[in-house]
Amino acid sequence: MRETREILQAAKAAAPVLAAASAETKNAALEAIASRLLSEQDAILSANAEDMARARETLGAVMSDRLLLTPERVAGMAAGIRDAVALPDPVGQVLRRTERPNGLIVEKVAVPLGVIAIIYESRPNVTSDAAALALKAGSAVILRGGKEAFRSNAAIANAIKLGLSDAGLPSDLAGFIEDTSRDSARELMEAEGLIDLLIPRGGAGLIRACMERAKVPCIQTGTGICHIYVDASARQDMALDIIENAKTSRPSVCNAEEVLLVHSAIAAEFLPKLCKRLTADRAAKGLPVVELRLDSRAGAIIPGTAAGERDFDTEFLDYILAVGVVDSVEDAIAHIGRHSTGHSEAILTEDDGAAARFTQAVDSAAVYVNASTRFTDGGEFGLGCEMGISTQKLHARGPMGLEELTSYKYIVRGNGQTR
Amino acid sequence: MRETREILQAAKAAAPVLAAASAETKNAALEAIASRLLSEQDAILSANAEDMARARETLGAVMSDRLLLTPERVAGMAAGIRDAVALPDPVGQVLRRTERPNGLIVEKVAVPLGVIAIIYESRPNVTSDAAALALKAGSAVILRGGKEAFRSNAAIANAIKLGLSDAGLPSDLAGFIEDTSRDSARELMEAEGLIDLLIPRGGAGLIRACMERAKVPCIQTGTGICHIYVDASARQDMALDIIENAKTSRPSVCNAEEVLLVHSAIAAEFLPKLCKRLTADRAAKGLPVVELRLDSRAGAIIPGTAAGERDFDTEFLDYILAVGVVDSVEDAIAHIGRHSTGHSEAILTEDDGAAARFTQAVDSAAVYVNASTRFTDGGEFGLGCEMGISTQKLHARGPMGLEELTSYKYIVRGNGQTR
Repeated sequence: MRETREILQAAKAAAPVLAAASAETKNAALEAIASRLLSEQDAILSANAEDMARARETLGAVMSDRLLLTPERVAGMAAGIRDAVALPDPVGQVLRRTERPNGLIVEKVAVPLGVIAIIYESRPNVTSDAAALALKAGSAVILRGGKEAFRSNAAIANAIKLGLSDAGLPSDLAGFIEDTSRDSARELMEAEGLIDLLIPRGGAGLIRACMERAKVPCIQTGTGICHIYVDASARQDMALDIIENAKTSRPSVCNAEEVLLVHSAIAAEFLPKLCKRLTADRAAKGLPVVELRLDSRAGAIIPGTAAGERDFDTEFLDYILAVGVVDSVEDAIAHIGRHSTGHSEAILTEDDGAAARFTQAVDSAAVYVNASTRFTDGGEFGLGCEMGISTQKLHARGPMGLEELTSYKYIVRGNGQTR
Repeated sequence: MRETREILQAAKAAAPVLAAASAETKNAALEAIASRLLSEQDAILSANAEDMARARETLGAVMSDRLLLTPERVAGMAAGIRDAVALPDPVGQVLRRTERPNGLIVEKVAVPLGVIAIIYESRPNVTSDAAALALKAGSAVILRGGKEAFRSNAAIANAIKLGLSDAGLPSDLAGFIEDTSRDSARELMEAEGLIDLLIPRGGAGLIRACMERAKVPCIQTGTGICHIYVDASARQDMALDIIENAKTSRPSVCNAEEVLLVHSAIAAEFLPKLCKRLTADRAAKGLPVVELRLDSRAGAIIPGTAAGERDFDTEFLDYILAVGVVDSVEDAIAHIGRHSTGHSEAILTEDDGAAARFTQAVDSAAVYVNASTRFTDGGEFGLGCEMGISTQKLHARGPMGLEELTSYKYIVRGNGQTR
């Protein structure tokens, strides 16, 4: 097994080659990686079969499905890499240019970060998705996946390394960490001087550990206790559609709705419609029914589970929705301020003043008016891709596309200026 | 003494008022603060006299001078605040706007960070400078200065609070930490949920402590081991001017030059001129002479101290310059890669290829061609102001102006879109 530190040092040593590479070179490397993923498909699928055999004993059906690779999924990974080829190169863009009165020309230019490390969990496609974005952004990438997908990830990483070599670039630009114990995660968190950005993608425990222990720059991603507030003026038919979509279209993702707040002026009319839509109507269609966890005011209007102490502070990631009644947009804003994780929140309203107040005061990465929180995504926002959703305020907030995976430097050209 | 935690909670509670304030309101508050600094001048000067009386016993002349306030310096502080009034308001700027095919309008809008805390050392004018920038950027500010300047800082903070109240804003928007022990610094570093950005301004020990302990977002500032590389093709007269300026115009600041690298092809010709310029010529004018610490190749050409093991890794902040001889721009780049703190580096050259190679490969916040490193400064770069120089790559790099003291959020407007 290659030592983690050795892999990091090799990536750091190789990074300047990629930082200096043209968009054409980087795109040729991504094409070569996509080709290798397809040509190495048998090796990848057989490694995945080994992972799956072990996983069936320990993981549930949902987790097993996340782990599973098929020829279609491998083709999807290759297609994802080719999508990254099509994106504009963020590196070298002149972000600002000023000529100073003394003749100095000050340019703020986008540059690669250097080495980007990702700690992720079960889905093996993250291996190729993350590598493609980091490499396109001009950085070496360090991949540290979960234990369950180890063989699959290793086979995918091997195809990535082969593709880099095919394109004449150092294969060390993609470092694959073979140690899947907590030790290696900790080693990455503490690898000062070797990692320029660490992105933890996974459960709350992993993200918490990074925030507490990381000595390298780290971006907090993911946890989303997303709120939708239905204002008194909301179009109720639209509200039902949006709420059902935000809760049920993919309940396991971070931009799914977890909490619904309804203005008291319409609660008696709206909540029964909501209850019907999320329970009886769905049952009639054979769809999973949403469990409603109700505060006392909502519980006085519709049937459901009485909300417990933690229900307004839980990322359910399931067919469960906490429902509360509030008396004004200000109360909704205050509730969100106390309970939100700063990911995505929506107001449904026909009142422009309420919308303005909400979008100004809610301090989250994405604030919606009359749309589903499910749109918080790099592709949906027009960034073309994403490495995750940042819930912090420094550097990047919301979906992180290629631009958010770069830094910048100032290049100053003079003709002898002194100060 | 008011508890640190209580001050932080009050600032966080007050922050939304400022975040929602118009540019006019913020500017009126800054004007009121400037007026109060002038009207409270006697109180400020007498507090400073107390600090000075204690400082004379313990601090040297340079440190005492940094601590000293005079009517002129107080007027300068007020003028600095009025300069911030003149700067454009960064908050609310639409940084990007996209209309998506499904009709969603996605706006990326600049927003205040919330609460910005600054830990600083002896100079009391930082109290008003930092407060003015943070408040103009729409954030509450927490000020935690050094022990030596405690009375001066308290008097200045009082004037700031009076100014905020005069303008009808909560005085808690400027929190002054009365505890100057290490405990309060640590409390700020660990105040998760109460501080959105912590900026340590001070010595390497403070910055190191923040990087290791901070659980709140923190920006690394300041340490500058700045290099100048004199290429074989450099105009030597210009090089002498730039080097003397970068080393001697203000040796105690982070953008001063600490290391000079000279191409071997011109070393025998250039180094004697350099030695004369930095020693004999300066002595003849009664100026402080620069001590040269020479690697073995430079030492074979000119007289000076033989460089010790640490001399190429030391921020001297003094009239001392480490001098080495290299064989190519690539060797200079490699040396800088090993020894730089990522602040500012310059190449002096008439060769465009060498300049391009240097500006591409040197991974520092500011990279110069034919100009002094002393220009790394918010004002000199055209940002109008600065809170410090970031030597990290995430969020902000180089001088941090108002824009770098904000974050952004996505505001998404729809008409019922679901996904």
